[in-house]
Amino acid sequence: MKAALKEAQKAYDKGEVPIGCVIVYNDKIIARGHNQRETLESPLAHAEVIAIKKASKKLNSWRLEDCTMYITLEPCVMCSGAIIQSRIPKVIYGALDYRFGTHKSIANIFDIKFNHTVDISGGLMEEECSNIITQFFKELRAKKHLEN
Amino acid sequence: MKAALKEAQKAYDKGEVPIGCVIVYNDKIIARGHNQRETLESPLAHAEVIAIKKASKKLNSWRLEDCTMYITLEPCVMCSGAIIQSRIPKVIYGALDYRFGTHKSIANIFDIKFNHTVDISGGLMEEECSNIITQFFKELRAKKHLEN
Repeated sequence: MKAALKEAQKAYDKGEVPIGCVIVYNDKIIARGHNQRETLESPLAHAEVIAIKKASKKLNSWRLEDCTMYITLEPCVMCSGAIIQSRIPKVIYGALDYRFGTHKSIANIFDIKFNHTVDISGGLMEEECSNIITQFFKELRAKKHLEN
Repeated sequence: MKAALKEAQKAYDKGEVPIGCVIVYNDKIIARGHNQRETLESPLAHAEVIAIKKASKKLNSWRLEDCTMYITLEPCVMCSGAIIQSRIPKVIYGALDYRFGTHKSIANIFDIKFNHTVDISGGLMEEECSNIITQFFKELRAKKHLEN
């Protein structure tokens, strides 16, 4: 999760909502991703989707069957779907996303009877994962306040 | 939808499950996509995700706010999420996907209270959209039968 937080910091430095993700295979990080929605002008450029793309390339397979994903934030509906599509069996995230999270916050996508079941849990380094986002929006509001 | 079916045919010709998608903006098709999951070895390479990526590039924005998406098949959970993330307001699909569809078949993702509401409906050229998939799996089974 520390590596995922480093990814979140990269997003922060680019002025993006700081969310980071890494994918682990055989005890090694094989893919990293951070949110780049604004930088890349792509609705798909969430940390998880970027990391899944890299991991598939690395393993030369769309099935990430023996991988574990670490995300700093509860995944949104698209990323939850991408996790299910990529067959990742285990996901661990840090903080809850009360507005868009689809594990516990606004829905539980993982409870639907898909052809793949994900072992997903949250709360790992929750404070650090939450703090970086709080700090980001605090700075953003301060900046906007200065501009007005 | 005829253009989306042409895309599905491209997938068929590559040995991929034949699903196609186009995105329309100002009465013009600005992006096309067909399923390439096996070809690209990517769990993200569904027709819809490919088309969304192209449309965002074309409009230089992650917000596809005035676009309409035509898909030959009811979207899966990942693609439903990608549609919501990209703010596409209107989606029309052909056939139902009884195994993975998340509009009507196994769940209704679009009923969850997100920050974006999608006007989604199915049944347009349903027979043609369904037939191409039935034909694909029929051929696949016949091939497998010959191999054994």
